[in-house]
Amino acid sequence: MWTEEILPDKSGNALKKTFLFKDFSEAFAFMTRVALLAEKQDHHPYWVNVWNRVEITLNTHSAGNIVTEKDRKLAEAIDKLV
Amino acid sequence: MWTEEILPDKSGNALKKTFLFKDFSEAFAFMTRVALLAEKQDHHPYWVNVWNRVEITLNTHSAGNIVTEKDRKLAEAIDKLV
Amino acid sequence: MWTEEILPDKSGNALKKTFLFKDFSEAFAFMTRVALLAEKQDHHPYWVNVWNRVEITLNTHSAGNIVTEKDRKLAEAIDKLV
Amino acid sequence: MWTEEILPDKSGNALKKTFLFKDFSEAFAFMTRVALLAEKQDHHPYWVNVWNRVEITLNTHSAGNIVTEKDRKLAEAIDKLV
Repeated sequence: MWTEEILPDKSGNALKKTFLFKDFSEAFAFMTRVALLAEKQDHHPYWVNVWNRVEITLNTHSAGNIVTEKDRKLAEAIDKLV
Repeated sequence: MWTEEILPDKSGNALKKTFLFKDFSEAFAFMTRVALLAEKQDHHPYWVNVWNRVEITLNTHSAGNIVTEKDRKLAEAIDKLV
Repeated sequence: MWTEEILPDKSGNALKKTFLFKDFSEAFAFMTRVALLAEKQDHHPYWVNVWNRVEITLNTHSAGNIVTEKDRKLAEAIDKLV
Repeated sequence: MWTEEILPDKSGNALKKTFLFKDFSEAFAFMTRVALLAEKQDHHPYWVNVWNRVEITLNTHSAGNIVTEKDRKLAEAIDKLV
């Protein structure tokens, strides 16, 4: 489930979701698939990984760091991977 | 199932297996995981990819292009990924 | 330099080029970048990797396994990576 | 240059470094190489990526979130990639 959160500095908002995997290998394979999607859609995540955990934050810089249709489209495509 | 085949030039043998996936993204994510294993075990495949298909061939160059314990170990680890 | 070669079974032709790197890590990083391009252009290579060597073969299946503009575009983008 | 920083909650410290690339493709290729190193050394980063920027934070969870020899070794290997 993606949550829509206000940015810490209140300058905008973002979609966020955390994905957990069995280990680093599984997490990084997922990241590779997200990278392929991101490059295809020309829209890239802010994301954090540590070991089996991937936290993805999506918003649209060019729209003033708010959630746009681009983010919803990428979020939906990411959900189809897992 | 890995098959053990004589090399075309009869200079040795190799383990071979073909993996099929839903699409390129899934195939390349698998390749990324195999790459992590290969680098960890310091033993690398000869492999061919086209779209959703990955053909892996394993033998040990330093042993004269024959199948060794290194190949069986990598094959086993690859099988655990799928 | 990409060479244009007749396929072994004479059913078509293909662009081919071999890329050499320092080690597997460098070769696989290149492959990851080619994967990003391929997915973006929705056109995928037939490719072979062993250790530091990547051989890429490009043609267009849907056009009858011949070289088309899609292949030239991907080849050009790949060349810009190295 | 890696900097050694106290963690925000003062529970330990970490090595940190930010890497900048030309674009996402170059950044993700670097991340793939770091992933190969991390898996090989069985020591994984906390890292953040957005577009062409990769921020890597290293410490050793099992030692109580402090910088150890494992972190210095991984940092050194990462520096050799760029």
